[in-house]
Formats: sequence, C-alpha cells, structure tokens
Amino acid sequence: MNKDRLLILKGNLLFTPSSDQFVVHKEAFLICADGVIQEIAERLPEQYADCHVIDHGDALIIPGFVDLHTHAAQFNQRGLGLDLQLLEWLKKYTFKEESRFADREYAREVYEKFADELIRQGTTRAAVFATIHKESTQILFDIFSEKGMGGYVGKVNMDAHCPAALREDTGVSLRETEELIEAWKGHPLVKPIITPRFAITSTKELLTGLGSMALKYDLPVQSHLSENMDEVNTISRLFPEQQAYYRVYNEYQLFGQTPTLMAHCIYLQEDAIQCMQKQGVVAVHCPDSNLNLASGVMQARKLLEAGIQVGLGTDVGAGHDLSIRGTIVRSIQMSKLLYTMNPEYKPLTLAEAFYMGTKGGGAFFGKVGSLEPGYACDALVIDDSAERVEGHTLLERLQRFIYGGNPSSIRERYVAGKKIG
Amino acid sequence: MNKDRLLILKGNLLFTPSSDQFVVHKEAFLICADGVIQEIAERLPEQYADCHVIDHGDALIIPGFVDLHTHAAQFNQRGLGLDLQLLEWLKKYTFKEESRFADREYAREVYEKFADELIRQGTTRAAVFATIHKESTQILFDIFSEKGMGGYVGKVNMDAHCPAALREDTGVSLRETEELIEAWKGHPLVKPIITPRFAITSTKELLTGLGSMALKYDLPVQSHLSENMDEVNTISRLFPEQQAYYRVYNEYQLFGQTPTLMAHCIYLQEDAIQCMQKQGVVAVHCPDSNLNLASGVMQARKLLEAGIQVGLGTDVGAGHDLSIRGTIVRSIQMSKLLYTMNPEYKPLTLAEAFYMGTKGGGAFFGKVGSLEPGYACDALVIDDSAERVEGHTLLERLQRFIYGGNPSSIRERYVAGKKIG
Repeated sequence: MNKDRLLILKGNLLFTPSSDQFVVHKEAFLICADGVIQEIAERLPEQYADCHVIDHGDALIIPGFVDLHTHAAQFNQRGLGLDLQLLEWLKKYTFKEESRFADREYAREVYEKFADELIRQGTTRAAVFATIHKESTQILFDIFSEKGMGGYVGKVNMDAHCPAALREDTGVSLRETEELIEAWKGHPLVKPIITPRFAITSTKELLTGLGSMALKYDLPVQSHLSENMDEVNTISRLFPEQQAYYRVYNEYQLFGQTPTLMAHCIYLQEDAIQCMQKQGVVAVHCPDSNLNLASGVMQARKLLEAGIQVGLGTDVGAGHDLSIRGTIVRSIQMSKLLYTMNPEYKPLTLAEAFYMGTKGGGAFFGKVGSLEPGYACDALVIDDSAERVEGHTLLERLQRFIYGGNPSSIRERYVAGKKIG
Repeated sequence: MNKDRLLILKGNLLFTPSSDQFVVHKEAFLICADGVIQEIAERLPEQYADCHVIDHGDALIIPGFVDLHTHAAQFNQRGLGLDLQLLEWLKKYTFKEESRFADREYAREVYEKFADELIRQGTTRAAVFATIHKESTQILFDIFSEKGMGGYVGKVNMDAHCPAALREDTGVSLRETEELIEAWKGHPLVKPIITPRFAITSTKELLTGLGSMALKYDLPVQSHLSENMDEVNTISRLFPEQQAYYRVYNEYQLFGQTPTLMAHCIYLQEDAIQCMQKQGVVAVHCPDSNLNLASGVMQARKLLEAGIQVGLGTDVGAGHDLSIRGTIVRSIQMSKLLYTMNPEYKPLTLAEAFYMGTKGGGAFFGKVGSLEPGYACDALVIDDSAERVEGHTLLERLQRFIYGGNPSSIRERYVAGKKIG
C-alpha cells in the first residue's frame, strides 16, 4: 500500500450500520485507502505502524450528513414568505428569486455561499436543484467540484405553468440538460440528475424527453410528489388520464425506472406506496419545509413500514436552514407528534433518524453514509469539548450534539477521504 | 437630564406594540434614561445634540427575548433521554441530575454556563426553575444579578412523590423559600417566584403554605399544568376532591391570585380556560418540549382567542436549547400543523409569535419587551451583515434572523439600559 493513498483518523467512532442501533468504537482507528474505509481497528495494525495518524483524541467521528433534497437557488430566500402555502409561495417569492439566476454573477455569489453553508453544517453529499439556467447550473457543478463536495446537481426543467422568464422551450430545455450531462457524467463526485421541477410545470413532451434521457444515460431522477392538496388537485386537472399524481411520473419513466428521489410524499394513496416500494423510489422527508409551508407532515414511519427507503432533506428555502442535524431532530419531533395523535404510530428513534440522515440517504450515492469497510470515507470530526459534561457516555455526547449542537463544533469534514471546508 | 444616565442607540428599530403587526423605524434613535425608553426619534432632538450616540449603522435593534419557562438545573441534560415521556423522564434523568445540585460547586459551574448561554441566545428576561436546594438557588440568584440578567428565580418545592434525595420536609421547604424571598425581594432585576414543581410532587400542606406566602409577599407563582395525560390522570388520583388539575392550584391560591405562569396547558377543559382568562393566568407555550417528550401540543391560538395571555418558554432540558428565536419559529410551525389538521385553526403570524417572545411574555416583568416609551430598555443589536441580501426590506432581514439566524449575529444586549454579555 502506497502510504500517500492512506488516511488514518483516530477518535471515537459512532455510526448506524442499520437503523435499529448505533455502533460505537471508543478511541479507534479509522483506516482508509483511496477514499474508501478499509477497517476499524481498536489498535493500529502493525502494517501501519509507521504511517501518519491524525489523532483527534477524545473527539467524536461520525459519517457526514446526506441532504437528499434542497434548492441551491433559494438560499437567499430562506425564512421569507413563509406565511404562504406552496403554489402562492412559488408565485410570489420563489419564481422571482429563481429568475435572477439568468445572471451568472448572481448565481456564482449565491452558490458559493450555499455550498459553504452546506459544508459548514456538516453535509458531505447533497442532491440539489439549481434553476432552469444552464450557465448558472454549470457554475454550481464547478463550485461543488472545486470544494470537493459530493453531489447530484440538477438543472431544473420547466416548460409550463410558470412565469415567462422561467418557461423554457421544450427542445432547448432537453438539449441544454443533455449538454450538462455530457460534461459531467464522468465526474467522480459531482454528477448530473434529471430534475423536472414537478409535474405541474412540465408538458408531456418534456416529461417524455426527460424519461428517455434518464434511461439513455442511466441517470437518477429527482422531483416533488404530493406535497400539498392544492398541488395534488392541480395535477388531477392537468393530467386527468393518470388518476394519481405518482402515475404521471411513472408514465414517463421518471419513477424508479432509474434511481429516483421524490420529495415530500405527504398525501399518498395505498397504490402509490406500493408502487414506490416495488420500484425502489426513495421518499425524502423534509419536516421543516412541511411545517413552514403548512403542507402537512410525511408519515415517515408508515413509508418505512411499507418497505420504502426514506432519507432526509432540508428543502431550503421552504426549509429555513441547511442543517441535517436539525432535520434529524425535527423528523423525530414530528413522529412523536403523530404518535400523540395515534398511539399506534411508533415514534422514530434517534438511531432511525440518524440512519436516514446518513446511511439511509447515503445509499443514493452508493456505499456512502456509514463508517463500515467498503464505504466512502465521508466523515465529520466533532469537537464537543466546550459542551462536555463529565460522566456522559459517547452516545449521550452524540445525542447532545444532534439536539443542541452547533456547526462550530465540527472540527473537520471529509468527503471520500479528502478534507473539505 | 444628567448625561451619565442617558443611553442613545441608533439603528433600525423593529418591535411589536401589539400582536397584529411589526412597527419599523429606519435609522432611528432610541433614547433611554435610567434604563427606561424615553422616545424614538427619526432625528436626534436638539437637547441631546452633544450626547454620545452609539451608532449601530445599518444593524437591526429589537427587544430582548423573554423566556417564561425553563429549568436552569437541567442545562447539562438537554438532548438526553428524549425517548421517554414526562413521568419516566423525570424519574430516570431529571431527578438524578437535579440531585447533584446539593453540591454547590456543581451548581455554580452549571448555572454559570446556563446564564451565559441564555444571554448568548439573546434572552434578557427569564422565569427560571432552580432545584429544591436553597444554597444552589442562592447561587443562581447571585449569578443572574452579577451578569445583569432580568429574571424570576424559583427555588423548587417538592415534598411528595419524588426520590428521597429531593423530597423536602414541608416545614424546611417553606422556611428556606421564605429566607430566599427575604434576601431577594428588593432586587431591581432578579426577583423570587413561588415555584411548586407541580401538584404531583406537593402535599396539601406545602401548597397551602406556598399559596399563603405568595399572597403575604405579593409574589408571582410558576408551575406546570396539564402537560401529559399520565400526569393529568395522576392528579385525578391524588386530588380526587378537585375534579380538575387547575382546581388544585386554584384551591391553594396558586392560580392567578398573584401573577401566575402555567407551563404547557395542553389538555385543558373549557372550565380551566375560562378560569385562566378570568384570573389572568399566563399560559407558557414550550413547543420543543411538547414535541420532545411526545406530550402533545398546546393550542396557542385557542387560548389567545379565549383572551388568555400566552408567552414562550424553552423548557430546557425537555426543550433542547435556550433559543427563544427558535421557539418563535417552532410555535409558528406547530400552529401551521394544527391548521393542516383543522382549517379553522388560524396559524400564528410571525408578528404574533414575535410578540409572544417579547412584549407578550415581557408583560410578566412589567413594562418589558417593547421599544415603546416607558418600557425598560431591553434590546438586542443584530448585525446581519454576513447574511445580507441586497434588496431585502428591514422586516425581511428580521424574518431571516428569526428563521435562520445565529446567536453570533447578536452584537450587543441590553437589560434595563445596561449592556450585558
């Protein structure tokens, strides 16, 4: 083994190989080669005896956070207009803000800040919506790549039911999407993803073209599903032949034909749940966004019990910050609230929510989100010394970081073995 | 006017004189004398022409936050044990932690950190539970006083249904409470408050004594009411003659006979609501705590519409941090969730929730929580320059601070005209 390709971190390792409990290794060595975890060792194996070890002492080392749904172009808008609901909020705030991304300089300025904040919050992989603008989306790819972030970046496609400034010509929309795919499909960390905003803002021609492109390039898909009842009713009006929201995506090969993320999934009938399970569609739970836009709340436990993979999303700007740590807390809080209304609804445990924000969501990126051998070395080093209380176990220290922690406690961040931030 | 008694701040002033909207004064002067606001002036009146003005440029100046319910002794425990519900959580975590406050050194260490964090988060007035321990409670009074915080500090009284280490002799409990009252009743900013933990942990003798003491010294009262159904059912068992939880407090002169704070108020019948309104009992909404302990959620709008004053509380350790800013956000989120389940339940506006976290809660301390003339000069100076977006209005900048802000944006904090922190 070439020592230059090695990374050895020492600290207290905590992660969730499955959603039912944490695994804890006290003062252990995390040995990585070429960005991939090789082993966890309680003592440094002899073969590494003269290798450099980054000793983080009593710090906690956990997998990086995974954000499966957020809008980079809404970064400047977070916290605003939250007295409105989805469709009005899009009209009055979001579409106006996204129009500004025709200006590349504005895009660069916002996307730089967005990526820096994402990294500061401990997110190491993110599936991100840009805007319809090809040049600005290119800038977002560049920034992620320069900063070493892992991501799926989607140029948004919209050719209907939106302001003229954001309404694309269908042919141009498809061509520009394909140009970005060609440019980025081979990048090891920052990859393209097919991103129809949602069915409402798409013609059938656009959906047809995007579905074909996803299959042609074997690319993943991300969009929104059943966030709000007005949205669901609009879909019934626009696509009367489909009889259910999810069937629109399914009809056009955008629903698990390749790996698919669907944000929100609040109002789903039984057939939609069965189809998602069967076709491996990942549901993205964005509790702050659900609350801020008075959308309702995803019943995460119900989807998990139906065998659907659930990840977490911050959904900025309907979500008001980029913290997956906070999203873990909110997902547990919402599950407890659903439990108080229905004692048969079992609240999410901390392990389950942490799993959703790391390994569960990470699965969309491959072997990501755990500290097990074979996984990408995406890790956060948490220095909680300012907050330490004598006698707390390692797991209690992690609980305190999740519930009350602060990005400034994150001392180091790694993506595929490279330090970022 | 002696100039030494003057404080003049310049900046963008935002506050809620009533709960229906914000008042905004762009680049105005806040003129205070002896800790009390005299006027807001768009130009500096001639009489102050040669007075020192602290010019905060384009910063925002808002009232300090008011926390009407939190537990100083649970500061080290926040984020822990949140898989449990109230009565189990008290047994397994809280009572153990509170027992440690027999040790004055431990109390000093925790209370120092608690007060520093409260101040860092922008809280300028707080109603706080200590523990049963007189000496430790005395230390909390001292620390608040030294740091210039405004507060009501309560020595907790418990003489039943709790571990032996925390069970007081009734006579000792009352005597020590009275000794603290005598020592602190004259302090301008840090005052005693009668604090039976809750009816469950009180004998009738204790409640009788505390009610008399509240009347004798004209002191306010704080406790917990109807947080959890197990708690409510336990009360029915322990006080069968009262037929409702609130009647226990009312029977013993602890329910509005002097100004009274009741935290939680989730499960209230109509007669309880009417009694609270009639007797001016203030309900304290602690949404994070409600969610974390799966207690349910206070229907704040319903209480407001019944004419009850509602303030906000962080309720650490069941709440996981000391941020009233975050509590404002969570109170709005919860109201939106209640709205999605019942369209007749009107969500809280940002102005209403901000009012609850400033002037609404502040009323418990007198003329506190607004920037109007006659009010104590409790103010926060918010430097949001790192987050600024061109074109945002002052109100949008405040929204962004409330939703996504950070204690590090708070540049200065004043209590009654004195800088703290």
